[in-house]
Amino acid sequence: MPARLPTTRTGAALPREALADRLQNVRAWTLGLTAPLSAEDQCVQSMPDASPAKWHLAHTSWFFEAMVLVPHLPGYQPCDPRFFHLFNSYYEALGTRHPRPQRGLITRPDLATVHAYRAHVDRALEGFIAAGDAAAWEAAAGLVELGLHHEQQHQELIVTDMLHALSCNPLFPAYGAGVPLPPAPSSSSRSPLHWLRVDGGVRSIGHGGAGFAFDNEGPRHEVLLRPFELAHRLVTCGEWLAFIEDGGYARPTLWLSDGWAQVQAQGWRAPAYWTGGPGDGWQVFGLKGLRPLDLAAPVMHLSFFEAAAFAEWSGARLPTEFEWEAAHGTPGLEQMTGTAWQWTRSSYDPYPGFRTPEGAVGEYNGKFMIGQVVLRGSSFATPSGHARPTYRNFFPPAARWQFTGLRLAREVS
Amino acid sequence: MPARLPTTRTGAALPREALADRLQNVRAWTLGLTAPLSAEDQCVQSMPDASPAKWHLAHTSWFFEAMVLVPHLPGYQPCDPRFFHLFNSYYEALGTRHPRPQRGLITRPDLATVHAYRAHVDRALEGFIAAGDAAAWEAAAGLVELGLHHEQQHQELIVTDMLHALSCNPLFPAYGAGVPLPPAPSSSSRSPLHWLRVDGGVRSIGHGGAGFAFDNEGPRHEVLLRPFELAHRLVTCGEWLAFIEDGGYARPTLWLSDGWAQVQAQGWRAPAYWTGGPGDGWQVFGLKGLRPLDLAAPVMHLSFFEAAAFAEWSGARLPTEFEWEAAHGTPGLEQMTGTAWQWTRSSYDPYPGFRTPEGAVGEYNGKFMIGQVVLRGSSFATPSGHARPTYRNFFPPAARWQFTGLRLAREVS
Amino acid sequence: MPARLPTTRTGAALPREALADRLQNVRAWTLGLTAPLSAEDQCVQSMPDASPAKWHLAHTSWFFEAMVLVPHLPGYQPCDPRFFHLFNSYYEALGTRHPRPQRGLITRPDLATVHAYRAHVDRALEGFIAAGDAAAWEAAAGLVELGLHHEQQHQELIVTDMLHALSCNPLFPAYGAGVPLPPAPSSSSRSPLHWLRVDGGVRSIGHGGAGFAFDNEGPRHEVLLRPFELAHRLVTCGEWLAFIEDGGYARPTLWLSDGWAQVQAQGWRAPAYWTGGPGDGWQVFGLKGLRPLDLAAPVMHLSFFEAAAFAEWSGARLPTEFEWEAAHGTPGLEQMTGTAWQWTRSSYDPYPGFRTPEGAVGEYNGKFMIGQVVLRGSSFATPSGHARPTYRNFFPPAARWQFTGLRLAREVS
Amino acid sequence: MPARLPTTRTGAALPREALADRLQNVRAWTLGLTAPLSAEDQCVQSMPDASPAKWHLAHTSWFFEAMVLVPHLPGYQPCDPRFFHLFNSYYEALGTRHPRPQRGLITRPDLATVHAYRAHVDRALEGFIAAGDAAAWEAAAGLVELGLHHEQQHQELIVTDMLHALSCNPLFPAYGAGVPLPPAPSSSSRSPLHWLRVDGGVRSIGHGGAGFAFDNEGPRHEVLLRPFELAHRLVTCGEWLAFIEDGGYARPTLWLSDGWAQVQAQGWRAPAYWTGGPGDGWQVFGLKGLRPLDLAAPVMHLSFFEAAAFAEWSGARLPTEFEWEAAHGTPGLEQMTGTAWQWTRSSYDPYPGFRTPEGAVGEYNGKFMIGQVVLRGSSFATPSGHARPTYRNFFPPAARWQFTGLRLAREVS
Repeated sequence: MPARLPTTRTGAALPREALADRLQNVRAWTLGLTAPLSAEDQCVQSMPDASPAKWHLAHTSWFFEAMVLVPHLPGYQPCDPRFFHLFNSYYEALGTRHPRPQRGLITRPDLATVHAYRAHVDRALEGFIAAGDAAAWEAAAGLVELGLHHEQQHQELIVTDMLHALSCNPLFPAYGAGVPLPPAPSSSSRSPLHWLRVDGGVRSIGHGGAGFAFDNEGPRHEVLLRPFELAHRLVTCGEWLAFIEDGGYARPTLWLSDGWAQVQAQGWRAPAYWTGGPGDGWQVFGLKGLRPLDLAAPVMHLSFFEAAAFAEWSGARLPTEFEWEAAHGTPGLEQMTGTAWQWTRSSYDPYPGFRTPEGAVGEYNGKFMIGQVVLRGSSFATPSGHARPTYRNFFPPAARWQFTGLRLAREVS
Repeated sequence: MPARLPTTRTGAALPREALADRLQNVRAWTLGLTAPLSAEDQCVQSMPDASPAKWHLAHTSWFFEAMVLVPHLPGYQPCDPRFFHLFNSYYEALGTRHPRPQRGLITRPDLATVHAYRAHVDRALEGFIAAGDAAAWEAAAGLVELGLHHEQQHQELIVTDMLHALSCNPLFPAYGAGVPLPPAPSSSSRSPLHWLRVDGGVRSIGHGGAGFAFDNEGPRHEVLLRPFELAHRLVTCGEWLAFIEDGGYARPTLWLSDGWAQVQAQGWRAPAYWTGGPGDGWQVFGLKGLRPLDLAAPVMHLSFFEAAAFAEWSGARLPTEFEWEAAHGTPGLEQMTGTAWQWTRSSYDPYPGFRTPEGAVGEYNGKFMIGQVVLRGSSFATPSGHARPTYRNFFPPAARWQFTGLRLAREVS
Repeated sequence: MPARLPTTRTGAALPREALADRLQNVRAWTLGLTAPLSAEDQCVQSMPDASPAKWHLAHTSWFFEAMVLVPHLPGYQPCDPRFFHLFNSYYEALGTRHPRPQRGLITRPDLATVHAYRAHVDRALEGFIAAGDAAAWEAAAGLVELGLHHEQQHQELIVTDMLHALSCNPLFPAYGAGVPLPPAPSSSSRSPLHWLRVDGGVRSIGHGGAGFAFDNEGPRHEVLLRPFELAHRLVTCGEWLAFIEDGGYARPTLWLSDGWAQVQAQGWRAPAYWTGGPGDGWQVFGLKGLRPLDLAAPVMHLSFFEAAAFAEWSGARLPTEFEWEAAHGTPGLEQMTGTAWQWTRSSYDPYPGFRTPEGAVGEYNGKFMIGQVVLRGSSFATPSGHARPTYRNFFPPAARWQFTGLRLAREVS
Repeated sequence: MPARLPTTRTGAALPREALADRLQNVRAWTLGLTAPLSAEDQCVQSMPDASPAKWHLAHTSWFFEAMVLVPHLPGYQPCDPRFFHLFNSYYEALGTRHPRPQRGLITRPDLATVHAYRAHVDRALEGFIAAGDAAAWEAAAGLVELGLHHEQQHQELIVTDMLHALSCNPLFPAYGAGVPLPPAPSSSSRSPLHWLRVDGGVRSIGHGGAGFAFDNEGPRHEVLLRPFELAHRLVTCGEWLAFIEDGGYARPTLWLSDGWAQVQAQGWRAPAYWTGGPGDGWQVFGLKGLRPLDLAAPVMHLSFFEAAAFAEWSGARLPTEFEWEAAHGTPGLEQMTGTAWQWTRSSYDPYPGFRTPEGAVGEYNGKFMIGQVVLRGSSFATPSGHARPTYRNFFPPAARWQFTGLRLAREVS
């Protein structure tokens, strides 16, 4: 068994039957997400940071081929050996790859062929799970599980990347039926913000229990925290409107220096996908197309820079990722998961004792540990069962196309 | 009748029946060209200079809507008013337009909707031709004819733009059945190059006879030429290989200054779509996919810079566009049309007395008369009946994705 | 004697004494132009198209070293062999060179060292002219003359490049005493524009007489012109103001396509060096610093794109370079030379029969014959005796930092 | 007194006489550093990240004018009010400023004028220190002290920025006499690397004692550390050579993802200022010009990306900034200060409880707290008395023009 997967699973591996079920469910969910989309929709790449839905379908299959089937299933015949180059994302150890900004130019293989590729991989995985010998299974089980969590990450990316592509279309089309939609805010999360106190002291951070976690969630370790207060809910669109109307996007002293440079270079005047403005009324583009601004809804599609400027403007601050994790479970906290990812004031640095796993899987998380900011929680588009309180999501500070919001923190007065 | 169309037609307008036939033929040819392509193929845009095939299908219909149907057919109902913004190419006088580099992001309307758009426009045009009143017809007939020639220009662009998109795919797929292919060289055009003398003197240049021509082909006027000699055929791939092997791409003194800058910035080592090299053998990507180099075939996919460097290397020069036109019809000249566009040594300047037509059609040709180089002849992908000896094609000097070759000229010794 | 210099001198070479006098005068004039400038002023490079004054001082000396002294003066000791790399401009045949955009980083050699370099070259040239043997002299005399004309070109560039550098300084400093200044317009050139007719027919174009000319001015050849009319003077700042006030910079249909792209990308709202505007009053930055707009002065610092848009707006056109040359000498024409270079409607193409000279001097003019536009006449900063009626100046169509204006032409009505 | 300066001074303010002495010494040291440089040297800006020496001379004077003299000295007459725009660096609260990338275009004011500006400011400060009334003094004393530390930061930048400018000169000139030079390594720091153990536990981090510190060094707070080992000295050029020879710059799996992108985009093959290579022998450009590689010298001019890749290659890691600070004072540690800044594995995040000071000084440090990496220690060019064990230097991870090296850490085995 490979000594160091990019996971920190500490308990027993999942039984074969459980994994087989999970494989079927996860793979079917991916197809369900793309069902409302035409072949044209699934081919398009609207910016280098995004990928076509068809590419996501293929890449998640490639991951199983490259990590599980080729190294661990004797006699496995790849669907098409040219796909190793086409659908590798960033694994230097696994050979050459198609340039990321050109993923949208791959009209062939067409969508039907990619569906066949998925079926080919599914059949091989199912056979392997059912009948692979014990040694191979022991070596590969963790990788199969990793592949499923990997595919769940791409499920959310399918939604965010497609939303970005549709936002570039002046017809403002809706994604289509069946896609996950943001939950309606509860009455409590519509009410005025109040603060919840969290005690300080030595707290354990990171994944240490049974079950799957990514490598970047460990090693579990202790940190010393000061007491602090956390907002009971996320910042709303109505509160964001007040920030805009108070000149939030025009006052450089509210902003980090790199953030102000982005405001000017990109012409930011509101979160991504907001259109219109004071005169015409604000509208927000989303999965159902263009909709009037809902003041009670959590604001989303923020960069870290905007979240930090808002916190400065409001006289509060962002929580660190350690504070967020330590606060998790505090009674009265709402919208911690399932609504929007929450920017923290923590750069994405390795935990003490973190070591990059050996081999190709070592490129999974560790090599991005610079220049990114940690987000905690999960969004409405995060697949059920994917995230955890120790989960560390990360994006560059200027990224806005994810379902990203913010929750305020402040010192104990 | 509009006084100044971007045409120099001097004879009578085409009869209604002739135009109706021509409309049907031209429009059907466009659909035939896209028939081998999937909806994904037709959605992709591989560089800002190229456009998706679906966009070409829609834009050529928009041209009829914007130039003919809306201004001249009372009561015409546009297929979808949002298409005026989506499918305008560069006509400032006709309102806003979707940014050119983002044409590939328009997954909706989908291909079926664009086919319906074409049918909608066809029906309206057919009705107008059949039953439009005399005054409207007099005003619009020239615009309908212009629209057909416009569509023929886009027919060639569909092929070149799609070829470029396919060239970005590492699988090197073929375009598909039914697309025009380069003719096999005749035995005479396979033979060693020989020179044909053309006399000098005062020659009439430009379109002056009956029938359609673009505005940039006139006014017809006289120029004074010196005698010169013209090669009986185009330069071949074998001759180009000799240029490469003699260090043609590594000797700056053969190149125009801007050309040498391109060689270095783009890493040019051969014409576009050539791959491989001395060791592995050269291959050329084309409409049938990757094929071994055919030494007797005319070299194509050259920039003007490369054509000029080759001419310098060979001790000859490129003909001016006036020389090319004056030589047309000289016995023994081969491959003047239907093979590859031929770079001339003439910048694309206006002819004496040229005036931009008034109104939107005035943006057709005149506003590009700087920074471009004239090509003469036509290619195998140019629709039958489209080009003329007075036809002035033009592209920027670094463009390589068209079917562009060269023919040498020299002084009379 | 080298068979093919980049000149078309047809008469006898200049006598040695005449060249010696001319050498002294030209070299002293260069130093005089830089006399008002500090060492800091002379070191700065404000954009890649411009060069530091110190670089001009050194490069014009390098030209004599590389073209005359090293190849033709036996035993010549270069001032510093490293200067061959530092001060070569663009001659690929003469070895490596310092990257153009980094000329402003050369603080060492300092200005005093460059002055010593000039003196070293002057002494060697004076000795060579006085005592070089007959064969060497015959080979080199034309190159010495070429070097002097080359230096005169750089004299004007010293003024235009320094003016650009000073324009980047928010203090708007004046160049300093002793620099050439624009002449005050005569009463006739202040009067309303009138038109002078020029006959058509076969006209000889290009340099053919005795005396020096650059290679690009030949071969002399015949062209067939139609009659036309030319404005008696240049367009004034007052006329340009009317263009601005009539929305000239906001109406895309007045502009060539590439020109309109520049207007938008660069934010052009007036000629270069105009500041202020309707509310505050216009001011123009020039060699004497910031000055109020003089309505009667010829407008300068125009791109070709602006000149062409103005001509379109005024219902006239730009003359071709052949028309300009044919009109030269017509009674009543003013400001043909010594005021501002005049954009023509001619791309910079080679004349019929033009061949690039062999060797390094072959890179002088020919390799720029694409993508540039011809200007005719001369400016107030052109050294006395430098230009001719056949002189072909050229710049890219977006260039604005030269002393460039325009003169209108029109068809004979 | 302003409640919140960007300092954490906790003791009494410096007495007036002490500050007067310190002012004289610091200001004189700045002039001494520029004494070997010509006016041309001091005018040049070789990249947007660097500034001209003349600008540093003026900006450090502007800081005193804008922060001390204008707000606190009644009747103060600025040297030239236009300098407020020219020499503001990045203080949005203090008005407009000249664009950073164009600092090298300011040839006027010339160097002599900037020297006069310094003298003007010095006289006013001296008068204020000697005779300012008590209330004004209480408000301003901290700002004067801040201004001196600010000037010391620019002293090191004068050296690094000038070194970069000189490195762009193919003549490889030396800086000049009197500039600080790297110390010769001691025999112990030349010996093989050994490891020193540092205990874990709760440690106090940040400035908390008497005396000056920057705001980003506080608040002092406790962190929980695990035990670790630290290398007794910096990594040497000889060790770096082994990394190069082992393919360090060609193995992507050693690199962070953004780092590998830089390696490829910038063509990094060695630290900045290394030239030559395996065949010719390595040379290093420095303040004395080009010198052969000294294997025992600490390697410098590294990006964080290179430091992290080296640590990965060597099987160790970089220390966090907390580990570095906690280890300070451990017997046997060498080269902690006065040699080269040491990259840590800590992103530059705010300490718990950090608040941006109000007013213009609030822009000093806080607004850069994202996207940067912390360096600890000091370099040979850091002015004596400037740095502290709690000092947090920071640069973007790709920066290489500073005197940056690395020290390894590792887990306790």
